[in-house]
Amino acid sequence: MSTVSKSFYAIVAGVGAGTGRSVALRFAKAYPVVLLARNPSNYTDIVAEIKQQGGEALGISTDASDAASVASAFEQIKKEFGDKKLAAAIFNAGAGFGIKPFLETTADEFNQSLSGNAGGLYNFAHASLPQLLDSVDATSPAPLHPPTLLVTGATASVRGSSRFAAFAAGKFAVRALTQSLSREFGPRGVHVAHIIVDGTIDIPRTKSRIVNDGKPDGKIDPDAIADSYWHLHSQHRSSFTQELDLRPYVEKF
Amino acid sequence: MSTVSKSFYAIVAGVGAGTGRSVALRFAKAYPVVLLARNPSNYTDIVAEIKQQGGEALGISTDASDAASVASAFEQIKKEFGDKKLAAAIFNAGAGFGIKPFLETTADEFNQSLSGNAGGLYNFAHASLPQLLDSVDATSPAPLHPPTLLVTGATASVRGSSRFAAFAAGKFAVRALTQSLSREFGPRGVHVAHIIVDGTIDIPRTKSRIVNDGKPDGKIDPDAIADSYWHLHSQHRSSFTQELDLRPYVEKF
Amino acid sequence: MSTVSKSFYAIVAGVGAGTGRSVALRFAKAYPVVLLARNPSNYTDIVAEIKQQGGEALGISTDASDAASVASAFEQIKKEFGDKKLAAAIFNAGAGFGIKPFLETTADEFNQSLSGNAGGLYNFAHASLPQLLDSVDATSPAPLHPPTLLVTGATASVRGSSRFAAFAAGKFAVRALTQSLSREFGPRGVHVAHIIVDGTIDIPRTKSRIVNDGKPDGKIDPDAIADSYWHLHSQHRSSFTQELDLRPYVEKF
Amino acid sequence: MSTVSKSFYAIVAGVGAGTGRSVALRFAKAYPVVLLARNPSNYTDIVAEIKQQGGEALGISTDASDAASVASAFEQIKKEFGDKKLAAAIFNAGAGFGIKPFLETTADEFNQSLSGNAGGLYNFAHASLPQLLDSVDATSPAPLHPPTLLVTGATASVRGSSRFAAFAAGKFAVRALTQSLSREFGPRGVHVAHIIVDGTIDIPRTKSRIVNDGKPDGKIDPDAIADSYWHLHSQHRSSFTQELDLRPYVEKF
Repeated sequence: MSTVSKSFYAIVAGVGAGTGRSVALRFAKAYPVVLLARNPSNYTDIVAEIKQQGGEALGISTDASDAASVASAFEQIKKEFGDKKLAAAIFNAGAGFGIKPFLETTADEFNQSLSGNAGGLYNFAHASLPQLLDSVDATSPAPLHPPTLLVTGATASVRGSSRFAAFAAGKFAVRALTQSLSREFGPRGVHVAHIIVDGTIDIPRTKSRIVNDGKPDGKIDPDAIADSYWHLHSQHRSSFTQELDLRPYVEKF
Repeated sequence: MSTVSKSFYAIVAGVGAGTGRSVALRFAKAYPVVLLARNPSNYTDIVAEIKQQGGEALGISTDASDAASVASAFEQIKKEFGDKKLAAAIFNAGAGFGIKPFLETTADEFNQSLSGNAGGLYNFAHASLPQLLDSVDATSPAPLHPPTLLVTGATASVRGSSRFAAFAAGKFAVRALTQSLSREFGPRGVHVAHIIVDGTIDIPRTKSRIVNDGKPDGKIDPDAIADSYWHLHSQHRSSFTQELDLRPYVEKF
Repeated sequence: MSTVSKSFYAIVAGVGAGTGRSVALRFAKAYPVVLLARNPSNYTDIVAEIKQQGGEALGISTDASDAASVASAFEQIKKEFGDKKLAAAIFNAGAGFGIKPFLETTADEFNQSLSGNAGGLYNFAHASLPQLLDSVDATSPAPLHPPTLLVTGATASVRGSSRFAAFAAGKFAVRALTQSLSREFGPRGVHVAHIIVDGTIDIPRTKSRIVNDGKPDGKIDPDAIADSYWHLHSQHRSSFTQELDLRPYVEKF
Repeated sequence: MSTVSKSFYAIVAGVGAGTGRSVALRFAKAYPVVLLARNPSNYTDIVAEIKQQGGEALGISTDASDAASVASAFEQIKKEFGDKKLAAAIFNAGAGFGIKPFLETTADEFNQSLSGNAGGLYNFAHASLPQLLDSVDATSPAPLHPPTLLVTGATASVRGSSRFAAFAAGKFAVRALTQSLSREFGPRGVHVAHIIVDGTIDIPRTKSRIVNDGKPDGKIDPDAIADSYWHLHSQHRSSFTQELDLRPYVEKF
């Protein structure tokens, strides 16, 4: 793998074993990639994997929900990738789940879902949108595709289920923010899209979990998710998608 | 006006010149009413108005976004209304507007929308739901209507418009939380509903604002809103509404 | 019961044992009521019941999906109620259910759902909207409430479930038409609203059906539906609802 | 261009100068393609264009809203492509627009929108789904991608605007049917998806129309639409999209 571009880079916030890893590997075929995760163990192997395949990758320990941490990450990016413009920013971070009765949900848990999901996207978008706007008008070279901000959502982005109060509040807020950014930055040339991932992702951690009656391909292959993220990035500006859903063929919805 | 019930009370969080005042006056025809607002000047006159009409009212200075402040308000309620059960809790609070470009929206403004809207509802629901559950099974007397939690939404509850990033994030999160509470507490007998108020409310502060080409009734009469809140409260448990919208006949939507 | 008004009347299309009957009885407290159903056995008893209570009622055998039949009904109304203006028109008709696999759904069944649901509303709205518009400006006397067109929907109005192809197609089309009419006729003073009834209605025919684990009030009391229809009719024009849902507190959604 | 597959074919209903043409050309890179349109002038040039590029194409004059006409088309396909299985069926047909006041919309116009849009899809889906199901289990060779039914929608699929009563009723019904088919046939291995095309398509007929202030790429490039249709077809069955939207970056929504 040798990246198509050296003048542009991509950044993925919230890298782990699933969507983040696959998206990073997919975008690394075209761009040097920055990987953000709180815990370096979440990106170290992926950075190595990308480099081994001939790509460029840079992992930075970052807490997306902490503005100072995000600012520090972008400082480091500036030092190491200062010659590159931003082609694509993918927000895949999000505070943990915690399905529980509302009256057992603490204020801390509720607020962490808001700050970890919506607050994290606020920080990430604030840091990356000026760079994406800057890329819109780049000419030497021009970007391969319209500069893109992609945001991972979930079923809880559109449905407040019983006992999902904290998680749904965070995810609804992320979707609101993404919609607003689409409407504000789309006309300026930045493609902002929201992806509703509705199903269990097939990663080591979920191997033993039986979903959809254990049917083959009943869990989402994260590489398939990455293909759709890349498709969104590659869309012509006359035909942007603002939102799509992804789910296994056997998922009940 | 003499309230129908002395055994139950209603509480309205976020009382001001518009919806909060009208809802408080409407529910005061049936119940003693507690009025919460940060600034006592927002409820003093309304408390007086209710008392003058023969009703009972209690104003408490409360910041709904502050858990301790809400706890303190409910302590005071216990002292003064300790003999009464809760019939209806109306959440009409919400952090200010701030329509502005996303890159000019500070982290503080964004977070205040989350904590003032969703965080406020979290605090209010945490304090009132145990009381509402307690009222479900009350027998001597039984409640007039199913115990009710009503939540005021806005257009921004369902649409993330350009430059509404902060406000929409807060309002989407409120809607998520309300949906989740409807699904968790509805089957336990508490009616939880969300009202999307889509339009300018006709209050002194908006008198000079021209909306809908200045057509008559182009702004929402808050007493009309209160009629629909009361209707929701009065619905039989076999026929609960989870969400409805309210807008002037001439509003574009 | 003596109707409040002799100068206005209401009409209910699709009268049977459930929603139609209860709505007719509820509106008969205020207006003389016309009841339309294909089979006179569906309205004869209700007409008698209304008259017995001191109200006025007129039953007309009508197939709403047949334009000529609807035209003929409105001719007869003109003869008998020619001195009255139209206050409220309720469309509660709808072609039968037919849950079945798509490949077993015949073209006739599919088309009957379209013509019986959407086509029926087209005919009914075409006949009643000119009269409702005429009532907007009536002055001697003025209408009690803004002239109203109410349309009954179902879960299938917003969800195309597996094996509901025909029914959902018809119900989605009805909702589309209702939305469009709300936006066209609302600004002219006619209140057009859509009600999503999500649950089993408690009528003799469903008595033996176990829903929601047989819990009390697990089926919708049609009189409770009628209360919400009346509330919609009574809304002030500065605060119209376009859509609301109705479901039992124990309904899964 | 030489097609990848000789064992599978694609079919596009509703071929004209825009989406249909581009989708046919795109799918012709992989499969022999059948083109359906009422008027042969709508496909003759495209068939020639595909053949000139080394592809296979077959145009059949068909009225999708007429069951007999669709049956006859599939008879002819059986004769000419009897050795091939169906890989992808794209429904892009739809009865004309007719934006007009509701009271000026004739019953014929209303019904034609229902039969031309929803009725057309019913006919097309009835004929193609058995073939798509048959392809799911094909082994020698296996299909390149999960067999796919794609359906073109519009803004009017999700919004009943004023004066769009007929068009929206037809398009809502199409979306209902597509959703129902997704839920019924997805678990059986057929990918059914709905695409909301929200904007003016850039074709000769719209050249003189000024949209989005005449900004560059303010109309949708139909080749860009075709890229997204192909992406949907190529999705792995663990990660199907049920619905996405497509609109120019400058489109107001």
